[in-house]
This record gives sequence, C-alpha cells and structure tokens, in this order.
Amino acid sequence: MQAIAVYEGAGEPEIIDLPQPEPDDGEALVRTLRVGVDGTDHEVISGGHGGFPADTDHMVLGHEAVGVVEDANGTDLSEGDIVVPTVRRRPNGDNAYFERGEPDMAPDGEYLERGIVGDHGFMAEYFTSPAEFLVTVPPELAEYGFLVEPISITEKAVEHADASRSAFEWTPESALVLGNGSLGLITLAMFEQRFDRTYCLGRRERPDPTIDIIESLGSTYVNSNETPVPEIPDSYEAPDLIYESTGYAKHPFESIEALAPNGVLAALGIPGDWEFEIDGGKLHRELVLHNKAIVGSVNSHVGHFEAAVDTLDSLSDAFLDDLVTGIYDLADYEDAFVDDNSTIKNAIQFSEYEKRR
Amino acid sequence: MQAIAVYEGAGEPEIIDLPQPEPDDGEALVRTLRVGVDGTDHEVISGGHGGFPADTDHMVLGHEAVGVVEDANGTDLSEGDIVVPTVRRRPNGDNAYFERGEPDMAPDGEYLERGIVGDHGFMAEYFTSPAEFLVTVPPELAEYGFLVEPISITEKAVEHADASRSAFEWTPESALVLGNGSLGLITLAMFEQRFDRTYCLGRRERPDPTIDIIESLGSTYVNSNETPVPEIPDSYEAPDLIYESTGYAKHPFESIEALAPNGVLAALGIPGDWEFEIDGGKLHRELVLHNKAIVGSVNSHVGHFEAAVDTLDSLSDAFLDDLVTGIYDLADYEDAFVDDNSTIKNAIQFSEYEKRR
Repeated sequence: MQAIAVYEGAGEPEIIDLPQPEPDDGEALVRTLRVGVDGTDHEVISGGHGGFPADTDHMVLGHEAVGVVEDANGTDLSEGDIVVPTVRRRPNGDNAYFERGEPDMAPDGEYLERGIVGDHGFMAEYFTSPAEFLVTVPPELAEYGFLVEPISITEKAVEHADASRSAFEWTPESALVLGNGSLGLITLAMFEQRFDRTYCLGRRERPDPTIDIIESLGSTYVNSNETPVPEIPDSYEAPDLIYESTGYAKHPFESIEALAPNGVLAALGIPGDWEFEIDGGKLHRELVLHNKAIVGSVNSHVGHFEAAVDTLDSLSDAFLDDLVTGIYDLADYEDAFVDDNSTIKNAIQFSEYEKRR
Repeated sequence: MQAIAVYEGAGEPEIIDLPQPEPDDGEALVRTLRVGVDGTDHEVISGGHGGFPADTDHMVLGHEAVGVVEDANGTDLSEGDIVVPTVRRRPNGDNAYFERGEPDMAPDGEYLERGIVGDHGFMAEYFTSPAEFLVTVPPELAEYGFLVEPISITEKAVEHADASRSAFEWTPESALVLGNGSLGLITLAMFEQRFDRTYCLGRRERPDPTIDIIESLGSTYVNSNETPVPEIPDSYEAPDLIYESTGYAKHPFESIEALAPNGVLAALGIPGDWEFEIDGGKLHRELVLHNKAIVGSVNSHVGHFEAAVDTLDSLSDAFLDDLVTGIYDLADYEDAFVDDNSTIKNAIQFSEYEKRR
C-alpha cells in the first residue's frame, strides 16, 4: 500500500510503499478515507517538533484521520463503521495515564503520538489501531470526520479552562481566539455557539479568506498589526476567555493583562525558546488581584473525541465548506502540504467512502 | 474608644480616640478581642497598597479580627457569640458579586476592604458589621480566632487550584510553599495534612524560628540562597502544587518550570512593577506540553471563612503556639508592628474573652 512519510533530514514528505498492516489482538484494520494536514505536520516535516519511531529513519505522517473499519478482527467494532483514531499510544507497557483513559495527561516519555512522537501516523491506505482508540462517527459525518481530532483539542482545552473557573459563578460573555489558522477558526465557530461576543486575532490584511470566515461567523476580526493583544481591552473589550493557538510566545503573557477580571487563558501553542522582557510585577499583580487563570492544554482523550463528534455535527455546512479549502488525491499529495494564504484546511483522500447496504 | 489608625503619609500607626460605633439595621456591635498584624498591614502603613476611606485623612487598621457580639441588634446572632468578620464590603450599592456571596471575585471598584481599601478596619475596641459578614467561631477557638482570616485566604486559593485540576484525575503528592511568613507557615501546616511531602522556601539562614517550625511540621526547608526555585526539581522534586505567598514577581514565572507535569501554581503575592527577562518560549511550551495551570487568588468569602474555622480547629496547639510570637496589649501596640526575624505572627489584644454562663 502507499503511504506518505518523511525521512530524517529530508524536509519534505514523499510517497513510500509499505506492506498492508495486519491487526493484532484487540486491534481493527481501518481503510483510510481522509487525513487532514495541520501546522504540527509542517513542524514534524521541518524537524521542529516530535520524533521518529525507534530504529527507523522515517515516519508515516498524519494524526487527523477518518476511516472505515475493514476488519473488525473480533473487536466490538463492525466492518463498515466510520471511525476516527485518537493520537496517543502506550509507549513500552501500560501506565497510570492510559489505565485511567487520560493519555492526554501523560508527561514526556509516557506516550507516543501517531504521526508526531515516535510512532507512525495515519497517512496510509490502511492503518491498524487498538479498538479502544477508535471513536465511531455517524456515516453522514464521514466527509469531514478528519476534523474530529482538531475539534477534540479544543474540547479538552475548554473543559480545562471551564474547570479552572468552576469554584465560583463564572458568567463569561466574550471570547477571543488568538490565531486564525484552521484550529483557531474551528474554535471560533464553537465559541460563536456559546459566547455573546467573539473576536479572532490574526496578522493578515484584507482581502483574506480567513477574515471572510470570521465575519461570516458573526465574529470580529482583530488585526494584530493595528491592535496588538495588550490594546484589545481598550479597542474592543477585555475578553472573559482567551484561547491561544498561535504558538507566539508573547501571547500568553500579554493575555494576562488583556483578560477581563476572573478570566482564563487556554494556551495551546508550542513555541521554541525565546527570551524577552516582561513587566513581571505587573502581570503577577494582575493575576492575583483579578483572580485570573492560565491553563496549558495538549492533546485530548476519547471523551473529548466523542464530544467533538457532536460538535462537528453542530457546525454549519457553509462554515465547513469555507474552512476546508482542498481535498487532494494521494497522487496530488504535494498540493495538500502547500501552506499559503489561500489555504485554510487541506486533507488527503486515500479512498472513497461508499455506503454499504 | 481607642483605635489604631494610620494617617496619610505618617508611615506609622498611632492610637486615636473614636466614638463607639452604633450598629445600623442588619448590623451587630462587636467587642474586639484580638486583631492580627500581617504583611498587608505593613504595606498599608507604608502606602504601598490599599487606600484611605473617602473624605478622610486616616484609616483604622486591621483586617484579621476576632470579637464577641456585644449587641446582636435584632440579627440572627446572639450576644456572647464569638465572631470573625470577613473583609470585603459593598462600595456604593450592591453588585452581582456581593449578591451571590462572592465578593472575593469582585474587580477593582466593586468592593471596599476593611482596613485595606477605602474602609476602616477592626483595630478598635468595638466595630460594627452586617451580620452576613460575621462568621461564628466556637468559643474554644476564640484565642486564635484572628487566624481564621489568613487561613480563609488559603482555603480559597486551594479551592481554585483544585478546581483547575478537576477535569482529570489529579493525584498530587507534593506541595511547595514559597514564603515562610505567617501565611506561608499556616499554609504549610494545612498542606502537611494533605500531601505526602511538603517543602517551604525562604531566604533565611539557620538558626531561625520559622525553619524550626517548618521542620517540626515534618516539612523540608529550602533555602533560596542555595536552591533557587528553578533548581528545586533537581535538588528535591518537582512539586504538584506550588503556593506563592512571597510577592516576589519572578516566582510565578520560575514556578512554571519547577512544577511537576499537570501541576498548578496558586499565586497570592501582590508585587509592584518589575521588568525582567524570561525565556517566554520555554515557559509557554512547558505550560502547554505538560498541562500546567496558574491561578491567581485574592481575598475569600464566607464559605472560605467557615472552612477556615474547621481548619483552625485541626491545627495543633504546638504549631499555633510557635506561630504566634506575640500578643500585645493595646498600650504596647508598637511592639506588635515590629517586623524582625524573631517575629512570626503578632496580634493586638483589645479586650479579654470571658465566658458567659
């Protein structure tokens, strides 16, 4: 079968031939339908994040997959089920985090991530996975099922942010998303359902398709070239929730000031080292005197994937059609990795879904 | 009656004469037993924090009080009840925070603080308070009842820190208290009841009475001159919970790295402005990849005071006797404000508690 992999130091993906995998006990064989491409894939390709599987010089890419069960192999799944795989897998042997169904809380070394950290991903015509890590999706959501993984990332971050505000009566009205990439836009669409007023910060100028999406959602675009984060309270309002998906290391610190009293920042970006000056006294004081919180959040567990399936179902077709700018056949995979201002969310199609019966 | 007040710009407290206050409807008249002195009082005296009541040039000090109801004035209280007052009061008119019993979550301008922000404190022979802000205390706790307020500060901070970790199965084993002042030591005694291993950081050298208390609690003293916060994980262990009560603005940022994966920092200090350099990229990445959280916490509400009464009851007499280094009569009030290395927690006695019946 064909797969899309990156070799160490190559800096770009290529198609390779692999034997079709065979499911072990407890695993199902899945025929891949589509796999999304995101910023993490670009970081893995450039060598900026993640790591190769042990004893290999390459890694199959992809962690945002949707597929159809080809061989249930004695698991509780059925052939023909549409499934989305979670990303984290046990390293050598079990650990407490996997035992309690919270691999997303495992620290470095206690997990592998398919397509990211030490384990092959899903960009192949077939993949196998323990059934416990396959979340079923209604057939009508198969088309955009590759969005369940990124949605699950936000489900977790927001669950943790909400938890941090659960010791008092929090009545948030406004939310700000930092970053107008695909994850930022998905999150903005989710926030539009919940908050009275939403804002999305980016650094692009008009005309731009992400700004069009932001405004068609009924949200307000904040151009960071005109209004940097610290000025947002004066120019717009101090948001109750800030969701950071830029990976821009100054954003969490600037957000402490920008948040409304009792507000919370959910931080999701993964920047490299960067030293800069802050007024740490002012930020410290602001955190304390206004009861603010910061939660870092990475990855997501099966429960978040299940919530994400419902969320995907709630998003409008118009939004999803605007968000997904390209579905590319395997032969055209290179186009799926182009990252320019006309690209929002691309996916690669490995096979077509045909309804049985 | 006599009271201890500070005049604008005076830089030190003095005794003044005031008429005995008369309770309004819904208020009780309280005869003051003891009022504790803490770091906030010193900041108020020096002009570094808080503000004077409107249209006055002085403020009665004190926010850590215990007293006995002298005139219940038709409230649900009874004459002879031992009570501790909460600190925040309505500014002009009600607001949502006070309506729902969470004045501790009110932002700037939506509250006064007795003895700190715009309202006279409790360092007087008598004070009045709405009964809703008076928490009853068993008579056997009257002696150290002035500790209920500082304990309540930690009750709130820990409630918020725990809430931030409630979206997953958090199994904390170790806690680090930054600061060996009286609030730090009280918190350490509370943490000793809950965590397997505790640490307390200070900058004092042996011999020192706070180090003696730390070790008599079964905790480990960390000398910040030898082991600064970033080195604590290597020298001791990465704590699951860090409680910051130093007001040293670098501590929250250093704590992000020092925390164990999935750990939380409760920040309580209130520093002045201070610009310094951080590796913001590293801290941002660490927050995210290890699901860490920071919660700022200020003040406390009636529920925290009620919890604090139970906590006070659970602390050993030996600890409390070591903690409270001086109880001074009103005439000797100046001694209560001496802040040297032999002082841990002082209080001023305004009257003696005599059991009725």
